[in-house]
Amino acid sequence: MRSILLLGAGRSASALIQYLIQHAGGQQWRITVAERDMAAAKRLVHGGEDVAAVVELDASKAEDRAALIAKHDLVISMLPHFMHMDVLRDCLRLKKNVITPSYVPEDLWPLDAEFKAAGLVVLNEMGVDPGIDHMSAMRILDALRAKGARIEAFESYCGGLVAPESDDNPWGYKFSWNPRNVVLAGQGPAARYIEQGELKYIPYHKLFRRTSRVEIPGVGAFEGYANRDSLKYREMYGIAGIPTMLRGTLRKAGYSAAWDALVQLGCTEDGFRMELPADATWAEYVRAFLPETALGQDLRTAAANYLGLDPRGEEMDRLEWLGLFGNGTIGQAGLSPAATLQRLLEAKWVLRPEDKDLLAMWHRFRYALNGRTHEIHATLAVTGMDSTYTAMARTVGLPMAIGAKLLLNGQVADRGVLLPLRPSLYDPILDELATLGIAFTELELEL
Amino acid sequence: MRSILLLGAGRSASALIQYLIQHAGGQQWRITVAERDMAAAKRLVHGGEDVAAVVELDASKAEDRAALIAKHDLVISMLPHFMHMDVLRDCLRLKKNVITPSYVPEDLWPLDAEFKAAGLVVLNEMGVDPGIDHMSAMRILDALRAKGARIEAFESYCGGLVAPESDDNPWGYKFSWNPRNVVLAGQGPAARYIEQGELKYIPYHKLFRRTSRVEIPGVGAFEGYANRDSLKYREMYGIAGIPTMLRGTLRKAGYSAAWDALVQLGCTEDGFRMELPADATWAEYVRAFLPETALGQDLRTAAANYLGLDPRGEEMDRLEWLGLFGNGTIGQAGLSPAATLQRLLEAKWVLRPEDKDLLAMWHRFRYALNGRTHEIHATLAVTGMDSTYTAMARTVGLPMAIGAKLLLNGQVADRGVLLPLRPSLYDPILDELATLGIAFTELELEL
Repeated sequence: MRSILLLGAGRSASALIQYLIQHAGGQQWRITVAERDMAAAKRLVHGGEDVAAVVELDASKAEDRAALIAKHDLVISMLPHFMHMDVLRDCLRLKKNVITPSYVPEDLWPLDAEFKAAGLVVLNEMGVDPGIDHMSAMRILDALRAKGARIEAFESYCGGLVAPESDDNPWGYKFSWNPRNVVLAGQGPAARYIEQGELKYIPYHKLFRRTSRVEIPGVGAFEGYANRDSLKYREMYGIAGIPTMLRGTLRKAGYSAAWDALVQLGCTEDGFRMELPADATWAEYVRAFLPETALGQDLRTAAANYLGLDPRGEEMDRLEWLGLFGNGTIGQAGLSPAATLQRLLEAKWVLRPEDKDLLAMWHRFRYALNGRTHEIHATLAVTGMDSTYTAMARTVGLPMAIGAKLLLNGQVADRGVLLPLRPSLYDPILDELATLGIAFTELELEL
Repeated sequence: MRSILLLGAGRSASALIQYLIQHAGGQQWRITVAERDMAAAKRLVHGGEDVAAVVELDASKAEDRAALIAKHDLVISMLPHFMHMDVLRDCLRLKKNVITPSYVPEDLWPLDAEFKAAGLVVLNEMGVDPGIDHMSAMRILDALRAKGARIEAFESYCGGLVAPESDDNPWGYKFSWNPRNVVLAGQGPAARYIEQGELKYIPYHKLFRRTSRVEIPGVGAFEGYANRDSLKYREMYGIAGIPTMLRGTLRKAGYSAAWDALVQLGCTEDGFRMELPADATWAEYVRAFLPETALGQDLRTAAANYLGLDPRGEEMDRLEWLGLFGNGTIGQAGLSPAATLQRLLEAKWVLRPEDKDLLAMWHRFRYALNGRTHEIHATLAVTGMDSTYTAMARTVGLPMAIGAKLLLNGQVADRGVLLPLRPSLYDPILDELATLGIAFTELELEL
């Protein structure tokens, strides 16, 4: 009998828990789901209580957390990113393997040698993005290299979106994962990528204006904005000298221009608390970002003129649909502009119980082989079942679950801080994901 | 005999050191100037060696710093802002009074009770801005309140600029203080102020577009952009309910639009290291901020089109004057965009030895009294002597020096964390500054 501890059972844990429960008998697993919100965790475990226990945990309490970790063979952490280093240090100290869907924290690399020396594995970036993106890209890159191709360009886009059949708002967007991450998307250091050998840097206030049109045949028309740092994966992917490399995020066409209007106004700022009272209206919220001199006309027109947009244009339609020019009240005082906006978006962009989300990923590789130029387009489109068993939860949770199985069965040979970049990890995971309906379609073109 | 320790003898320390030396005999002072750059410190002390010693100090070395502090009666810290809390904790522990020209660090207020209990003074914001701005504003506000006026608006602008006779570049700007602070000006949380009862928030990427024209009679035509947080001084100044309050920074007319072009490009970003090699040209640096699709024309035109500016306009003239479209090399790899730009600006905006700087401050108060509306305009314009005895060094250093005299002579009754907001501090300081040529002219208007 092997014991698995899942820390955190939020939005993206449903499919992971389901997989663990389904395989508990065959794999001889006992599962503990540790979560602050007991009711939510119990709903996800429902029917699997014979193999999975739910325990209440405030993961910020170091002693409680460590006591739980000590009692299990493997830890899967779906806690917020900022808590990961604490968990990872616990795992090192208590000699436990651990899997996370999150980016490798900066502070983790210096501990790599210690994890290796202890014979332990920290398996990071094991969700969908990062996760399936790495695995699927590496499988194709490795195959191209094996036949002697020279990789000239790699672009990769991923988006957690709403499925067309549930898409009934002008933004073409509903929340299928952490709303705060969506509101703060792109903040921090400028986005970095390389195009035709030229390094490119996009500051936040230009990011949503510099989108690329991404048509995914059979899936839809999207636009992609650049992720924070496309450059760091050149080395990891073994394509250090590649002239063009860009990783980006997909949104439905039209989203970015409207979102940019919010960025330009300052509505996504998160560094200070607004002084507006809870009964301030959304119109007052917007007015706070406009110069006094721009007012004196109706608010939609004033905002459009300030932003250099058509007052009757689609961007303003999308802002108006949110109620930003109306007399609804913001409802809570003392939040940042971003957190205030997030409350509105959570009400407007809610994934209703019967709604289906869409996880779309699209890679384009250009390579030269035998004097000819080729492209491979690889597409993944996963539609959710409902607002609990979302495509997001499936694509984030299932690679981790399969990774857990590999780890517990001794099928991961490497030790230390790992990403799923090697065939020994990506092959079994991608193969099993395909059996679960998470499969890429590939298109090969000769240019 | 009383001993004074000056920590840091950078750009703004010349006039302070001169004052301390001049008054050392009469006041029975012994001065120690602790600085990493011994040669620079010795130049500033030159001629005063009988009363002032120079010692070498790397202020980041806690033991060396504390050993020096322990040996003196009063500490004046002109170290960079991020080092202040360490110095202030030393002073609390070693029971020393301390004066700084910097904003009160967030972490200092919680120590207020401990400083008070120890009978100690931390005198903050004792330079020019913050410093003389507080003192001069409070003197006028207190006088208005004393005669029963209702304060309706207070705007205050300050700028460290170049004097007209030394102004020979199209930006109308040369560095009279820390260049890094100039390059990063306005970054961080949005600027906050209040206008006619409406709170206003300006994100960084709009800050240099939302300037006010500020004509100072007899001084020049300027533009002002809003400082980080104008709101917090409402309480401190005793004008919590004021409908209009704005503090801002002055630049020569035309500067902000050109600076905004750099902001929009991303050249002032400081959160990541660029990958450009040291022999990359400035043109390559600029190209890194432009989309590939915008290129293919001459760089000045491409940049202007991307920014929505006239390719033949003044903003582009100013960028071209800096050499940003040329083949000069950036000279150092691995810096952030902002630090790379700073190297260029330090070469171009250098205050030459014989150059004179200009410190300009302008307050406008609007108030109601006896059913009528009045304004007071208070103007300070100080011209430097040369690039060492700058207006900046005089206006930053002399209030601190006078504050030191008051403290050592027992003329500061309050204890704890102080700002110069009370008559017992601002009256003697402003009066003595006036005798040193640092005096406001006031204009009263009835509207």
